[in-house]
Amino acid sequence: MNAIADPVAALLETAAQAARAAAADLARAPRPVKDLALREAARALRAAAPAVLAANEADVAAAPGLSAAFRDRLALTPARIEAMARGLEEVAELPDPAGRVLSEWTRPNGLVIRRIAQPIGVIGMIFESRPNVAADAAALCLKSGNAVILRGGRESLQSVAAIHAAMAAGLRAAGLPEACVQVAPTADRGFVGAMLRAAGLIDLIIPRGGKGLVTRVMEEARVPVLAHAEGLCHTYVHAAADPAMARAILANAKMRRTGVCGATETLLIDAAVAPSLLPLLVADLAALGCDFRADAAARVLCPGLPAATEADFATEWLDGILSVAVVEGVPAALAHIRRFGSEHTEAIVTEDAAAATEFLNGLDSAVGLWNASTQFCDGGEFGFGAEIGIATGRLHARGPVGLEQLCTYRYHVIGSGQVRP
Amino acid sequence: MNAIADPVAALLETAAQAARAAAADLARAPRPVKDLALREAARALRAAAPAVLAANEADVAAAPGLSAAFRDRLALTPARIEAMARGLEEVAELPDPAGRVLSEWTRPNGLVIRRIAQPIGVIGMIFESRPNVAADAAALCLKSGNAVILRGGRESLQSVAAIHAAMAAGLRAAGLPEACVQVAPTADRGFVGAMLRAAGLIDLIIPRGGKGLVTRVMEEARVPVLAHAEGLCHTYVHAAADPAMARAILANAKMRRTGVCGATETLLIDAAVAPSLLPLLVADLAALGCDFRADAAARVLCPGLPAATEADFATEWLDGILSVAVVEGVPAALAHIRRFGSEHTEAIVTEDAAAATEFLNGLDSAVGLWNASTQFCDGGEFGFGAEIGIATGRLHARGPVGLEQLCTYRYHVIGSGQVRP
Repeated sequence: MNAIADPVAALLETAAQAARAAAADLARAPRPVKDLALREAARALRAAAPAVLAANEADVAAAPGLSAAFRDRLALTPARIEAMARGLEEVAELPDPAGRVLSEWTRPNGLVIRRIAQPIGVIGMIFESRPNVAADAAALCLKSGNAVILRGGRESLQSVAAIHAAMAAGLRAAGLPEACVQVAPTADRGFVGAMLRAAGLIDLIIPRGGKGLVTRVMEEARVPVLAHAEGLCHTYVHAAADPAMARAILANAKMRRTGVCGATETLLIDAAVAPSLLPLLVADLAALGCDFRADAAARVLCPGLPAATEADFATEWLDGILSVAVVEGVPAALAHIRRFGSEHTEAIVTEDAAAATEFLNGLDSAVGLWNASTQFCDGGEFGFGAEIGIATGRLHARGPVGLEQLCTYRYHVIGSGQVRP
Repeated sequence: MNAIADPVAALLETAAQAARAAAADLARAPRPVKDLALREAARALRAAAPAVLAANEADVAAAPGLSAAFRDRLALTPARIEAMARGLEEVAELPDPAGRVLSEWTRPNGLVIRRIAQPIGVIGMIFESRPNVAADAAALCLKSGNAVILRGGRESLQSVAAIHAAMAAGLRAAGLPEACVQVAPTADRGFVGAMLRAAGLIDLIIPRGGKGLVTRVMEEARVPVLAHAEGLCHTYVHAAADPAMARAILANAKMRRTGVCGATETLLIDAAVAPSLLPLLVADLAALGCDFRADAAARVLCPGLPAATEADFATEWLDGILSVAVVEGVPAALAHIRRFGSEHTEAIVTEDAAAATEFLNGLDSAVGLWNASTQFCDGGEFGFGAEIGIATGRLHARGPVGLEQLCTYRYHVIGSGQVRP
């Protein structure tokens, strides 16, 4: 494939080669230089707030048919810009994940072997409407020593460009190459495809957005991908659940925010406790505005609930709707989760430690919780400071992807002239 | 795609689903059960040695046009069968990598977060002529709690089937599902393609074989791959090298075994020391039967050497041939390695710690050695006991892939009713 045949791929290649060279410089940069870049970027972002807001208003004005939810994700405010700037400063406070000696041992022949954390290299970040993803992703990549190419949604182009200008100012102030953080040089849709095919140029793709975007990326990418396509999370209220705790956890897990990937989409309630507890849980959630899709056993106990189809149990609602199934025991709960779940996050509520252990060990999910809300599954709540996404694949990283997960490792082997027999 | 349209894909789907169910049982099996299966498999393999040898003779006889090297890889002997059996027992002695608590911390809200090692799931092993790969891969997958589907070369079908029978006997003796270790149910070439496309059915593909096989797998796979396509390894003899150490290391790194991926293919010798040392290095290696491809500066010092082309520096010889280039300083050595290397394994020979650090930190390779032979890069030498391959990608694992690297992780979060504010 050459530049004449595919100019968009040529643009990607140029950007990725500049990113590779910049990543080599960044990987050698000591922590204070990276932190300076982040703090100076925060300062530049605050100083540029009027310009960023103007760019964002232009983006919003250019897309008049937006839904209210889409407009909410796209729109920036002074408070959101300040939150982005603070986010950059918070990443500066986090420890440097690169260069850590992950383990070290000495072989009988005297060779000392060290496993050392190292930046992955060049990250391709593909996201949709939320412009703040640009700042978060740039900060985490910069701190972990990775170069990043940001490709935001077409609706947020001017907003992302304005945020990127602040990142570039921070890099310049710290004497780091601006190519450490780049935005896609074209709005051409083919650029995403070029990123996905860029094996050898881009080391990792991280998509952030709706299931359609993420699924497309997972299906087409020739480059490794860290992501989750959906978070079809379950809360299982076990026979030995504390009723008050179950009510508090389920209300939070379902209704605190319904649009996040860690929101519970399905309640599994044990048959042993459903007659007494399900009506209370339904009343709690209904009072918060939740609707229901319930299986036959649940509808016997709560006759007013709409009937659930199989497809409902396979649906990530991302809304005030809860699927409800009555199950008998931990194995049945696990079987339901294996059949319908997305290996993201599931919780059990129980006072029975043996049941909790059986449930947690039987899960294939990235995150299993005992007596806590499924909405705790993100990087901030894990203490990572920030996350670039949440992964449900089985290689490299599972669950929240923070600074540590943006590193790979290499080995250094220290000898004194050893040769192999 | 349905069974009528693609019967080979249907066979793969059936095998992979059986593997998935078996992996769930295996993941729950305690260590003594897995170790019993390995020891009983070793016993069965020893008892079946005559049958394995007969099957292997039939394989060799069925492919009369084999090269001597190919025949050597394919042919089994009583000693090789004993080595396989001992290998199974050695894996039984290794610690169980699954279930380890990799880290644990407590959040300010009281949530206890544990990161726990977990088997990856279903591994697809695609290999060429060496039948012992079947036993090694089966043992490592079994011990780490992964199910495996083995697809060996067409020339080794009967040998692999005979080895597999011993593994199945071990699994039966331990009460584990035989589907934990399967061989491809068809010799149809399309089965490899079906494995590579089996996203969701197979979690990880590990190819072992020549560059052609591995490159095809990397290019076509829709499933994550751990592998290296080539090991174009460099030894850099620095200006401050101890001459005697440099001679011993280079002779070992190049000539101990020339066909292994950790063999040095290119000597980079510093201009400061080349006039005195290069003639000695060349004489040593020539006495061991090595041939050379040398750049202009090296040929000034050793006029008899054949000239190297650019393509020679990009060639993994896997034979008694050494490319030679004279470089000036660590940055020039690193630049040569970045241009021509495969990010596998490189060594520096020097008494200068600052130069060694500069070299090791500047490498992008999975393994960097200081004052030791590049042939130390495999799992046995790292103390992993055994390896299923060596990886040069940037995700999940780099360098030798042993039991630990055959695990992913998940999180268990232990609460006491926490809800998210």
